[in-house]
This record gives sequence, structure tokens and C-alpha cells, in this order.
Amino acid sequence: MKIEHLAVTPVALGDPPLLNAAGLHAPYALRIVIELTTEDGRQGLSEIPGDFEVLAGLEKAASELRGQSVFDQHAIATRLFELLGHDSEVRGERSWDQRRLVHAASALEVACLDATARKLDCRVADLLGGVVRERVPYAGYLFFKYEGAGGPLGFECEPGKSGWAAARQAEALDADGLVAQARAMIDEFGFGSLKVKAGILEPEVEVQATLALREAFGPGVPIRIDPNAAWSYETALRHGQRLLGAIEYLEDPVRGQSEMARLRRSLGVPFATNMATTSFADLPSSVALGAEDIVLADHHFWGGLRASMELARICATFGRDLSMHSNSHAGISFAAMTQLGAALPHLRYALDTHYPWQADEWIAGGKLRIEGGAVTLPNAPGLGVELDRERLEAAHQRYLQSGLTRRDDEVEMRKKQPDWRFRPTRY
Amino acid sequence: MKIEHLAVTPVALGDPPLLNAAGLHAPYALRIVIELTTEDGRQGLSEIPGDFEVLAGLEKAASELRGQSVFDQHAIATRLFELLGHDSEVRGERSWDQRRLVHAASALEVACLDATARKLDCRVADLLGGVVRERVPYAGYLFFKYEGAGGPLGFECEPGKSGWAAARQAEALDADGLVAQARAMIDEFGFGSLKVKAGILEPEVEVQATLALREAFGPGVPIRIDPNAAWSYETALRHGQRLLGAIEYLEDPVRGQSEMARLRRSLGVPFATNMATTSFADLPSSVALGAEDIVLADHHFWGGLRASMELARICATFGRDLSMHSNSHAGISFAAMTQLGAALPHLRYALDTHYPWQADEWIAGGKLRIEGGAVTLPNAPGLGVELDRERLEAAHQRYLQSGLTRRDDEVEMRKKQPDWRFRPTRY
Repeated sequence: MKIEHLAVTPVALGDPPLLNAAGLHAPYALRIVIELTTEDGRQGLSEIPGDFEVLAGLEKAASELRGQSVFDQHAIATRLFELLGHDSEVRGERSWDQRRLVHAASALEVACLDATARKLDCRVADLLGGVVRERVPYAGYLFFKYEGAGGPLGFECEPGKSGWAAARQAEALDADGLVAQARAMIDEFGFGSLKVKAGILEPEVEVQATLALREAFGPGVPIRIDPNAAWSYETALRHGQRLLGAIEYLEDPVRGQSEMARLRRSLGVPFATNMATTSFADLPSSVALGAEDIVLADHHFWGGLRASMELARICATFGRDLSMHSNSHAGISFAAMTQLGAALPHLRYALDTHYPWQADEWIAGGKLRIEGGAVTLPNAPGLGVELDRERLEAAHQRYLQSGLTRRDDEVEMRKKQPDWRFRPTRY
Repeated sequence: MKIEHLAVTPVALGDPPLLNAAGLHAPYALRIVIELTTEDGRQGLSEIPGDFEVLAGLEKAASELRGQSVFDQHAIATRLFELLGHDSEVRGERSWDQRRLVHAASALEVACLDATARKLDCRVADLLGGVVRERVPYAGYLFFKYEGAGGPLGFECEPGKSGWAAARQAEALDADGLVAQARAMIDEFGFGSLKVKAGILEPEVEVQATLALREAFGPGVPIRIDPNAAWSYETALRHGQRLLGAIEYLEDPVRGQSEMARLRRSLGVPFATNMATTSFADLPSSVALGAEDIVLADHHFWGGLRASMELARICATFGRDLSMHSNSHAGISFAAMTQLGAALPHLRYALDTHYPWQADEWIAGGKLRIEGGAVTLPNAPGLGVELDRERLEAAHQRYLQSGLTRRDDEVEMRKKQPDWRFRPTRY
């Protein structure tokens, strides 16, 4: 089954002003949508983070991969490596500064698996060893934020039965704001666990908000907190001790595997990471040091769905749990994350997703539904989603008009606080 | 794609009197052939080691797995676990005393992948990430042996252009015998590397034979030697030192990961294993200790082809090479091994196979061809092989007549040497 055509479409996704250790989300998150067509007319979709260098590489690849078998992921990865070059292997310090090559490889792999599963009339999860769970649990992802709901959308966010549309718009800069946000999110989506994006406000404010969530929702709603390594060892130790018993896990409190391992031994609460251990090359030192309990995988950042299944086996083998990291994304990525979540042999922790924050969508039928804190795996071939071409074109026009070429939360933050500078360790 | 029917056929495969640390090969090696038929009429084949307990489990499973999706390997493995029970997890001390559950899971997985690939009109390697190499290299597997070529065959072994048919029959109990065997095997199959099965004769004889092979074929033909952990630490250290520079790797010289790690540090030659590290559960201590350089995988013993790809990722991640272990097998197993060998991203060492020793076959068209020391991946869907039902039935009748129910090299050895007893460490 050979590739006949690859359409690569950069799009802009309306994104609220969410605060994080790197600064502030711009009004649009950039994504790239891949639409692969095979010689026998099958379609395969995928979506990855938008970055002009990945985009340029994929645009070059689009013509060169014509005639390539969808099964031959090694040859595709080799060709992408030639096109994107060695620079694409380099990581930056922000949590999304991952290597561009793995994004591109993931884009092709997911689209190829989608096309393959459509031909077989099975779901993508079936190509990963089968569906272990039909309902994939996600956590409610809470952000401190400024007022606003992001750039103009392709269509209006439907007002939910609860106050989520309003909460999505509302400012949340303290405990009360975050509890209100959580309540609206739980009312709308039924999340059974919560995640607090921290590392931006004073740790005292973030810890108080986390404890307030615990007070508001009780031990039946596990809470995780993620300072994105913006805390020093001493700050993380002091505040981590206050959180003991109130959180299910602490995500990237400090920077680097050695500091993670040292703090983990001191605190005795599960540690998760999507910053200290983010590639296969990081795993030997992670195992040697004991840097974390939970690896937060992301198929966009680990090279695809099969690579994520291999990572799951490594985690199971070396006594780690696997859960999932998320960046701002739309429905095609969400469908792929859900297929992977359905196929993971072991899943103890609900997956992360930004999906509720994005009102925009370009899959047919509108947004995928989160109910009871979970997504039911679509009962349709492949990823289970189809393109709405009109909306995709609108999102592409927004991309062209936005003038954005890559994510830069620091620039965006300076529009609010001119003196603000990114600092790897802030507190 | 659902399972409609599962045919489970125990067969006996003519096997020469090959010597090894566990004793002597019986005139027949037992195998089980699985033939799966899907509701839409696709066929899927597989072959695994024969053992009456695995056979009983698979015979029970045959009816119970009807209606099960071929994609759902988790559900299949769960059902097999229920049928085969916890005892099936236990390993013995012989190198083939692996867990029965993984044999059964492997049998189903390979047959399901074969059926899936046939439906997709692709090769099984394509379902594992694609074909990295069309020609899969194997090593010539040399044995000390008594005279004889094993039990009566279903059909006559074709006399080769070289003296292999005679060498296969001939006694080989010293250096001259082994060099003659190697020469005939290389003439017939073009092997570019050799493996010496050791751990049965006096180490002095085995080491001399290995050095004689080196002398005869030169450094262009890498040689590996496998005493199957029958050597004590001191014996292995002494003889290992004599082999330095003459071998590409030393396989399982001593028993257990700790002794392997200690000796490996002393000798400084690559170590391979299919005895010290034989399951995912063995990997953390292997990594912590540094027990080996090369894991000799075997999809029959690691739970299937996907599990073997996961193992390959673990090996690549933790600085190990992956190559392949073999027991006496026929063409369906050989085809599956070759599909896996074609899909492995990295392959530095030629794979092991007993295939030249088995003249018998029940795939259509007769034996798969080894030329230039490699097997060319069949250009046909699935595993690329079809059943010859007449020959399969003949092999099944031989199974019934043989009276054998499991491999027992000790009993067979006592027919030659009545006082012989298996000893885990012999020298």
C-alpha cells in the first residue's frame, strides 16, 4: 500500500491565555495536519505540533515520499532524517522544545497506521495489540490564566450545560479561581482527576490552590501538580512536603534526572516526568538513578504510536507507570492519543489533555466528547475521525493571518509583563 | 477479523543425534503447528516447540477462542493464561525449559499476524514496522554428534551439491569432525559465520575444535561458542582466555547473571545469552549487573513477534545487541524468524538456526532456501509459506507413532551412556 499524496496543512487553533513556566499561551496554538492518500484511495490523518522547521521538512517530504510503502516506517524515518537534518535532533529547555525529527516521524507513522487500519476495517488500537479498554480516562487540566478565550475561532464554542464556556473565558489567578475552573470543568466533562499547571505564580499561591482543590473535591478526585521544573530543590522540598497526602503525583518539580532522583527519595511521593526523561536515550540514566515513577509519554514526542507501545513495555519492565503528556491540540491528535490509551496494557493514571481548552475543531461532526472523564473509543475504522475540509481551510487561513511560525510563550508573556524573562529555575 | 477455527496439530520432525549440555537430541523433535482460519476465510499459520502441556492448553483454547478478534492479543493472552494456569509460568534449568504460556501466546500471535498480513496483502515484517533487509543472515550451527540423521523422514532429504547430506549423517566428536561438518555446511548454504554448540564434551576438545575452525576458515568467518552454562567460573575463565581474539562472542559460558557479569568483566569479549536473560522480568537485573552484550531472542520464548520488537527497542536503549536463539524447528518457525529478522532495526550478528539439520518439511514447495548464508524474505503475503497437508499429516502420524510427549535429552543420552546424568555445571 503506497503513498500517492501527502497534504501538509499548517493551522492555527484558538488557545486561551494560559500561564505556564515558559510564559503565556498565544491566542493561537499552531498545529500541522497531515492527510495521506494511498494509491488505492485510502486516507490517513495525523496532527502534530506546529513549527516552521518541521513544516518545511514535511513539505519537502510530501513529494519525496510519494510511492513509499505505508508499512515501511524505517525508510520513511530515514528519508525524514535526511530532509530535516541533524539539527532536528536537538532539544531546547522548554518542555515542548522536543526534537523535530520525532514530530515528523510521528506525523507519518500515525497517518500510515490510520490508512492501514481503514483498509483492514479495524481501529488503530487493533494494530497496536488490541483494545484493552473502550473508555480512556483523562484528567481535567487546570491552568492559572488571564481573562480571555484565545483567538477568534472557526466556529463558536457551544455553551455547555454547565458554566464551562464562561470558566474557559474567566481569569484564574488564585485558589478560588482555580477551584471555580475545576468545578466547571468537572461539571462539563465529569473528570475524575485533576492536574494543576504550576511553576509560574509564587509557589505559595500554587500550593494553596492545590490544597484548596483537595479540600473542595476530597480524596476521591486525585490531584497532580506540575511546576515544569521551575522550582529549586529547596523550594520543591519545602512545598512538596506540604503536598504529601494531598496529591497522587508530583510532576517535574525540579530540573534533571539527578535532582529528580534525589528529591524523589526525600519526599516519598510518586514522581512523574515529561522533562527529565523524554527520549529512549534518557532511559538508562533514569533507571540507574531512579528519576521518576511515571513516564508521561506523548506519541508526538516519542516518535509515534508503536514507539510509545515499546516505551510502555520498557516502563512495565523497569517498574514505571506510563501515562500521557499533552500540549494544546485538536481532535486528530486527541483521537490518536485515545487509540494509544486504549491499547496500553497497563494504565493506572488518567491521561493529560488540553482538549477542553480548545473550542476550535476541524474534524467532521465537531469536537470529540469527553463524558464521565473519559473518551469512548470511536467505533469506526482507523483513528475514527474524518476531516471537515471547510473548517480545516478556515484554520489554515487563520494560520496565515496569525503571522505566527512557532510557539513562543515568552514573547506573549511580555505583552502583559514587559520585564518578564524565561528562567529555567524561577523559584 | 474473527477467528473461525483453530487447528492444532502435534508433529514429529526427524532430528539427528546432536549432543548438547542437556544430553542428546531424540530421533524426533516435537513441534506444534497452528492453522487459524478467520470468518472471512483467511488463513494464519504458526509453529512452536512441542510439549504435551502446551498442546493440551492449545487444544482447549481452540474451541474457546472461536469468535475472538485476531487483533485482540491481550484478550487472547488472558484466555490462554486461564487455560494454561500459573504453572505455565515456571521455567526449568534446561535452555528450552521456558514458560509454556509464552509459547502458546506466541503461537496465536504469529498466526494472527499471518492472517492479518494476508488480508492486507503485505508481509508480516510490514506489520512490525517494515522490512529493513530483504536478506536475513544466519550462522551455521555446528554440533558434536553421533552418527545418524534422525528418525525416518516424511520424504528424502535431497542430496545437495556438496557433501552436506553425508556430513549431516556423519559422526563429529572432535576438531576434525567439526571442521568437516562446517566445511560441508558452508559449501551447501554459504554461511558467513559459525556457531559451536559446546558444554557436552571435555572443554579442551571443544576449545580445540573452535580454534581449529578459526584456523581452517580464518578471521573472515566469525565463530561463536555456546557451552550452555555447563562450565564453572574457573573453567570458563581459563578456556575463555584461550578463545580471546578467535571468537566473535561467548554465549552463556556460566550460569546466572551475576556470574555472567563477573566473567564478562574479566574476559572483555562480548557475551551473549539465551539462558541468563530470557524474559522481560530478567532485564532490570541484567542492566544493573551488565550480564551480557547480546540478548538472543526467540519469538517462541518471548511471547511473539511484537514482544520481540519491544525487546529489540529495550536492547537498543540499554546498549545491547539483539540476535536470535534457535531450537530444532521447521519452515513455519523459520519463516517467522526470518520476518522478525527482516524487521529488526539493528542486526549486527547473524541469527542462529537449526534448520539445516532438519531434512523434513511440511510447507508447500519443500524447504526454504539458505543461500549465501542468508534467507531471502519471501515475496508473498503473510509469513510467505503455505501448508503441504499431506506432509503435515505424515508428520502428525510420526508424532503419534513416536510415543514422545516432550523433549528429554537426558533419557536419550542414557541410551548411549547409561550412567549419564544432567548436571547444570558439568566442567
